Amino acid sequence: MTSETPVTACVLIIGDEILSGRTQDVNLAHIATELNEIGIQVSEAHVLPDDEAILVDNIRKASERFDYVITTGGIGPTHDDITADCVAKAFGRELEMNEELETLLRRREAPPEIMAARLRMARVPQGGELIRNPNGAHGFRVENVCVLAGIPRVMRDMLSGLLPTLKGAKPVRSRTVTAFVTESQIAGPLGALQQAHPSISLGSYPFSRDGRYGTSLVARGTDEAALDNIESTLKSLVADAGGELLDS
Amino acid sequence: MTSETPVTACVLIIGDEILSGRTQDVNLAHIATELNEIGIQVSEAHVLPDDEAILVDNIRKASERFDYVITTGGIGPTHDDITADCVAKAFGRELEMNEELETLLRRREAPPEIMAARLRMARVPQGGELIRNPNGAHGFRVENVCVLAGIPRVMRDMLSGLLPTLKGAKPVRSRTVTAFVTESQIAGPLGALQQAHPSISLGSYPFSRDGRYGTSLVARGTDEAALDNIESTLKSLVADAGGELLDS
Repeated sequence: MTSETPVTACVLIIGDEILSGRTQDVNLAHIATELNEIGIQVSEAHVLPDDEAILVDNIRKASERFDYVITTGGIGPTHDDITADCVAKAFGRELEMNEELETLLRRREAPPEIMAARLRMARVPQGGELIRNPNGAHGFRVENVCVLAGIPRVMRDMLSGLLPTLKGAKPVRSRTVTAFVTESQIAGPLGALQQAHPSISLGSYPFSRDGRYGTSLVARGTDEAALDNIESTLKSLVADAGGELLDS
Repeated sequence: MTSETPVTACVLIIGDEILSGRTQDVNLAHIATELNEIGIQVSEAHVLPDDEAILVDNIRKASERFDYVITTGGIGPTHDDITADCVAKAFGRELEMNEELETLLRRREAPPEIMAARLRMARVPQGGELIRNPNGAHGFRVENVCVLAGIPRVMRDMLSGLLPTLKGAKPVRSRTVTAFVTESQIAGPLGALQQAHPSISLGSYPFSRDGRYGTSLVARGTDEAALDNIESTLKSLVADAGGELLDS
């Protein structure tokens, strides 16, 4: 709810292991934080199985609906790594061996069967551009779809290579006021404050700590001065409601 | 890829705070693990903003595509808590004050303005059933859509109340073989093994530990004896590839 048109992104988290509960995703929070810094807002995220039809459909639709699509996972050498295939299908392109990737992957010697598996990772859809990772495997980009690894450390390296190539709007900043106060105690004035300041997005996030209920009030927007004002107002609002302010 | 028809679920994780990267979701992994235990497979999860149009559309579509839909978040008393409203709209129903919830919420005295905010949490779509939580706030269910809290501790209590009311298929079990072996080393035989056993789903999840690359091989299926066999085969496969087995 900022006045500028936000630049949007959708994150597609690919992998049965996230959906089975075996693996806890930590990539979304990192990607969202980093994109936010350069003025790109993660508007949705979808956690998807290793299923070609579902992936192709999601990649195609997300590519149309959002400015950027970031995928994580499914780019290794095994049979369940089908992200490159699905991105190619979504755009009606063929997969090609990328020469640079092939050279990199061939650098370390291996028996033919192992090399054949490894070279699956050199397949990039026609016209795709590499996303540079100084520390290892590269990702790639086709149109507005950016394909990153699932392993968090590798994903972060690839993301660092990707970020300078993306175009964001004005970054969204936030102010947080945390207090021992229940949401009901501040719901009325908070709603009124939101109505009075449509260019700022006000969120309220309850928590429990030491057996007491508290609330984090978060203001988001692109205007730092307006955010500073809202922060003061939020503190008064908590005090008026009889809440106890905590360090945010 | 089990031979029985799986019972499916979609998890809708509602809240700007997850998409901004401020809050790390931990509910999905817990829900997926618990549902798996009773034979319900989380097939997709969507992380969605506090936006009525997007939520209504997602609730409606997920309700049609999956056997169950579980939502987390957006059921508090503040202006950004719109899950109940959106579930009502998705099913074309009115929101009603639930008498039982109202009585509960009125039990603790409060000034009229605070009580008015608190009573937002007693609004349930027409015909909705409560999801019991012995420790506090209840969730509710409309058709196949089950509405839970976002705070993990409260969500877990509600989920415990919900689980006995859901009907699953045969639970999906898993066996994991973990080894210092690269995915490329075992990709060939692993792919062949998957082709030979279509009723079992084989996944391969790379990791790095102490500067070495390893892989977790996970077999999932409903037939315990078949899984035991596959586990032995996976161990031989790793040994043949020269990998070093680790405790899973």
